[in-house]
Amino acid sequence: MNINQFATHLNINDVKINDSFWNRITEIVRTSVIPYQYLALQDKIEGAEKSYCIENFIKAGKIAAKIKQGIKSPVYPADRWVYDNKSAEDNAFHGWVFQDSDVYKWLEAVGYSLQNHPDDELQKRADEYIDIICKAQLDNGYLDTLYIINNHNEIFTNLKDYHELYCFGHMVEGAISYYNATGNDRLLNAACKFADLICNTFGENKIKGYPGHEIAEMALVKLYELTDKKQYLDMAKFFIDERGKKPYYFDIERGRKTIEANYHYNQAHIQPRYQNEAVGHAVRGVYLYSAMADIAKAYNDDELFTACKSIWDNIENKKLYITGGIGATVDGEAFSFNYDLPNDLAYAETCASIGLIFFARRMSECEINSHYADVAERALYNTVLSGMAEDGKSFFYVNPLEVLPEASHFDSRKRHIKPVRQKWFSCACCPPNLARLISSLNEYTYTQNDDTIFVNQYIGSELKSDKADIIVTSSYIENGKVSFEINTIKPFTLALRIPSWCDSFNLSADYEMKNGYAFIKINNQTKIEITFEMKVKIVKCSNKVRANIGKAAVMRGPLVYCIEEIDNSKNLHLLKLSETPNFRYKNGAIFADGFREIEDINLYSEYEKPQFDECTIKFIPYYTWGNRGENEMSVYIRI
Amino acid sequence: MNINQFATHLNINDVKINDSFWNRITEIVRTSVIPYQYLALQDKIEGAEKSYCIENFIKAGKIAAKIKQGIKSPVYPADRWVYDNKSAEDNAFHGWVFQDSDVYKWLEAVGYSLQNHPDDELQKRADEYIDIICKAQLDNGYLDTLYIINNHNEIFTNLKDYHELYCFGHMVEGAISYYNATGNDRLLNAACKFADLICNTFGENKIKGYPGHEIAEMALVKLYELTDKKQYLDMAKFFIDERGKKPYYFDIERGRKTIEANYHYNQAHIQPRYQNEAVGHAVRGVYLYSAMADIAKAYNDDELFTACKSIWDNIENKKLYITGGIGATVDGEAFSFNYDLPNDLAYAETCASIGLIFFARRMSECEINSHYADVAERALYNTVLSGMAEDGKSFFYVNPLEVLPEASHFDSRKRHIKPVRQKWFSCACCPPNLARLISSLNEYTYTQNDDTIFVNQYIGSELKSDKADIIVTSSYIENGKVSFEINTIKPFTLALRIPSWCDSFNLSADYEMKNGYAFIKINNQTKIEITFEMKVKIVKCSNKVRANIGKAAVMRGPLVYCIEEIDNSKNLHLLKLSETPNFRYKNGAIFADGFREIEDINLYSEYEKPQFDECTIKFIPYYTWGNRGENEMSVYIRI
Repeated sequence: MNINQFATHLNINDVKINDSFWNRITEIVRTSVIPYQYLALQDKIEGAEKSYCIENFIKAGKIAAKIKQGIKSPVYPADRWVYDNKSAEDNAFHGWVFQDSDVYKWLEAVGYSLQNHPDDELQKRADEYIDIICKAQLDNGYLDTLYIINNHNEIFTNLKDYHELYCFGHMVEGAISYYNATGNDRLLNAACKFADLICNTFGENKIKGYPGHEIAEMALVKLYELTDKKQYLDMAKFFIDERGKKPYYFDIERGRKTIEANYHYNQAHIQPRYQNEAVGHAVRGVYLYSAMADIAKAYNDDELFTACKSIWDNIENKKLYITGGIGATVDGEAFSFNYDLPNDLAYAETCASIGLIFFARRMSECEINSHYADVAERALYNTVLSGMAEDGKSFFYVNPLEVLPEASHFDSRKRHIKPVRQKWFSCACCPPNLARLISSLNEYTYTQNDDTIFVNQYIGSELKSDKADIIVTSSYIENGKVSFEINTIKPFTLALRIPSWCDSFNLSADYEMKNGYAFIKINNQTKIEITFEMKVKIVKCSNKVRANIGKAAVMRGPLVYCIEEIDNSKNLHLLKLSETPNFRYKNGAIFADGFREIEDINLYSEYEKPQFDECTIKFIPYYTWGNRGENEMSVYIRI
Repeated sequence: MNINQFATHLNINDVKINDSFWNRITEIVRTSVIPYQYLALQDKIEGAEKSYCIENFIKAGKIAAKIKQGIKSPVYPADRWVYDNKSAEDNAFHGWVFQDSDVYKWLEAVGYSLQNHPDDELQKRADEYIDIICKAQLDNGYLDTLYIINNHNEIFTNLKDYHELYCFGHMVEGAISYYNATGNDRLLNAACKFADLICNTFGENKIKGYPGHEIAEMALVKLYELTDKKQYLDMAKFFIDERGKKPYYFDIERGRKTIEANYHYNQAHIQPRYQNEAVGHAVRGVYLYSAMADIAKAYNDDELFTACKSIWDNIENKKLYITGGIGATVDGEAFSFNYDLPNDLAYAETCASIGLIFFARRMSECEINSHYADVAERALYNTVLSGMAEDGKSFFYVNPLEVLPEASHFDSRKRHIKPVRQKWFSCACCPPNLARLISSLNEYTYTQNDDTIFVNQYIGSELKSDKADIIVTSSYIENGKVSFEINTIKPFTLALRIPSWCDSFNLSADYEMKNGYAFIKINNQTKIEITFEMKVKIVKCSNKVRANIGKAAVMRGPLVYCIEEIDNSKNLHLLKLSETPNFRYKNGAIFADGFREIEDINLYSEYEKPQFDECTIKFIPYYTWGNRGENEMSVYIRI
């Protein structure tokens, strides 16, 4: 690992987003998603599934108070993933085992939002939630409402399934964001206290366990970066090093003999440093891989970085949907085998693509290679954005590339494929994850090292660094133009990512290409302009992917396009794109020459060359699909 | 309904099969499948899952003896579908709730086999089993080992799930076959005694229930035909008329309010006479539809026959695989929605295609229309034959049209798709069902009415009827030739089915075409020859079926062909058939001109016309696939 190449991302307080494309979306998150989720956490959204999140914290707070007074509380079973109204007693914990994380994710989004856009009323509401949360913390620092409410004698007895360390991770991330935005350290102190308990509980000569659902690793690195307490970094490293060792801790805690290679789902089948393929639950995967990259960088650990690179390559080249979606199977919400990327059965969870962006940024910080930001861009502009309705009030968890509503309704194999976005879910991982990512885009735009600022995403913004203040004006999505007004503090190099989709660009300055970036020496105040040619392209998926044989997709810039029934009538599979279509781009939509196969009457008949009528095919950006009612959709089209 | 058109099938004792294609297969069933299953029923096959079938009858026999003596037996729960070694006490019932049916199906096959090929040793073994079975019958006629062993006070309390009436149906069919072959009426008397109990238990002013898994209806019609006892026919009619009435009996027996339209799985969502689409568990479906056709004919019931025709049309035109497979989804082993016929996720159970043949014959007996025998032929020569390995020692339950072994191993959605045939299963529905169908092909070959003998399947055989003795010599599968040496008893009409796949044929006599049959007047002793042109055809599936867009299949005569990896190397999806291939037919295989798409390196790249190498593609009959080890297979190929 070449330590000279290390970079760090610019922080949220150094970058202010102001972008024609993104302003609308971040405003929806600020004005619609965050307030909506505030109510959802208290179960005040009519027609939405109950969260129980704040209710659990209030219950836990009362029990924590009793524990301090030495008063015993009733014990309830802590033995399953979800506790619904029917199966759980009134005073017991309700909801999913990871329900606490909802409010932490919300607080994280609120922190980012407040930094971009101060809002006293919102801050007051967040402070009230923090008060409720902190009251639930036990004296020893422990804070997970499932075990506090149901049985605090069983804490840390099922790391594999019951998400205590996962909730802890989100608590830390929420606390850091909120502290950075407001200076209010109440939640941060609580998080550190919990972190200290964890450091005292796990490690060499202590419990040699690790999280069933990763994220604590990433969070502990962040906490170390903020507090400079090395024990947090070491704790993260321990979790990564210990994972997958035999005998498996997950077997030990269940009191049984080690079962060989049974933990692919948790990426705990072998030690992370020996892994080279993305497997198991996709969100867990990318959260682990992100932390592996963090630790590889922090400890200059070549072996671990090599594992990260192998896994990255495996995802990028064999397990990535064109939309940046990952996780091809609903079973375990997991990565499937190489090149298994079915369109109509995809899982491609919004959260997984968000996690892929986390992983990508960390890889960018380890190594100069535009692939990382290329993939992040693909995920961001397609699967991540697709996750949210235009009004920010309904969400996709699953982002398929082909939808036939009839199949979703009648075919149980496709029950996870929703033809329209849904309201708040009880298992509400994706909406708050979306909110926190979109509110912190600032942190995913630029990285820098000693002499270079890397522009990874072309998002209009103002940035301040030790090298220069730069005003970036972007109409990247519309016409590929980005300009940089640079007020130099000292000479430096500006490195502009040349996106993999781009065949041709105009750059107003001299540059040198390396690792996918155009490097420009900046000595004085200057203005630089780059224009990427935004031609509509037909993109072919490797013919190793069986689902896409004989088909192609349409892209313009980073946006993947799709066809919908409402524009092209029923039976999208009968459409065929001309190999040399005359593309017309109008108001964000693309019109192309094509054909419609004439329907067969007989189920089986002697082969005759299919007959086609000419037609115009309308494509819209994939991320906008499903906003006009239930209908067929497809990314790929026959060619 | 035009009663003049009614026909009946020729019985097994009037037709003797002697056919170059079928002799080998019926011999495998006789010499390999039947002896193998004899051992499997006693759990004497090493490495095969346990059946527990005979073991249960022995246990039940002991308890039945105690009951006669007024001695109480311990009670075990009768509350689930399967009782494995771990979950059931030693003295309790073991296996699936329908386990009794295995031996009945075996006895049915043995009966047919003995008629074709007497065998004292086999008959002795069957008699021993019948002895064990009859000892388990209670004095009131009841015979189902689950309830006799576990709790005979709960009999007939869960018709929906626990298969007592299903086992009864198979008992009747087995008993009739065995009686016809041997004249031994011991099992037949036991079956009649059980049938009498059922007639006394169910009906108007009695329990208004009906079977959860249909077959008793069909069996009761057969029992009526043998015994001429009208009560059996009426009982079958009652079961069909009562089915699907509201409030649902299945709700009543579970003590709850009727849930609307919840019983599609059992075809009990509405009354059969108002059904017009094939839904739910495919085997149950075709067993019900078969009985509906029986009852429609017996009672000259136009309304019921119209329902049969609608359902038939729905299967034939919207829910039938090219291989004659039905049931497109593993979930509920069920029919999916119209035109949903995925190749790689197909269920297409062997038993379902067997049941489709039952349904087809009964429809042929109601109406002169070659479609019925066409579909039966499609099912017989493809999915049914595919169900059994060449040596008769392993079996497919599921008959997919596309297999990628990797997907079967790693993708849980395809766990039901087995790349190689399996040994005996504990849920061994298909192997004995195959044995009984293949041993009774005689009954599926000809139908007749007052003046006409219909040749539905072209299987070499000798038949005796009131009109003529006919020797049929057939090399249908090899070269499409069939000849008929006719010794007339009285003038009659011979009707030869002209298969739907056949464009051209030579017939040595004058004929008139009607409803898909060539009608030939026969007045004197004569010899007639017909030769069907056996050209290799490319067959297109309707483009309403999404899975087959841009693809085609190859057929020769009734045989559907497929490609296998062992002949064509890996990645069969890269192969493309020429639109005008020069087909070469050699030793049952077909060689064709085609192309292999050159593999892409990049997962995503700008579209370029795919590049192909020329190649020769080898096709083998679908029913022979999977006999040379685990490998890729596909029926459809790009064109």
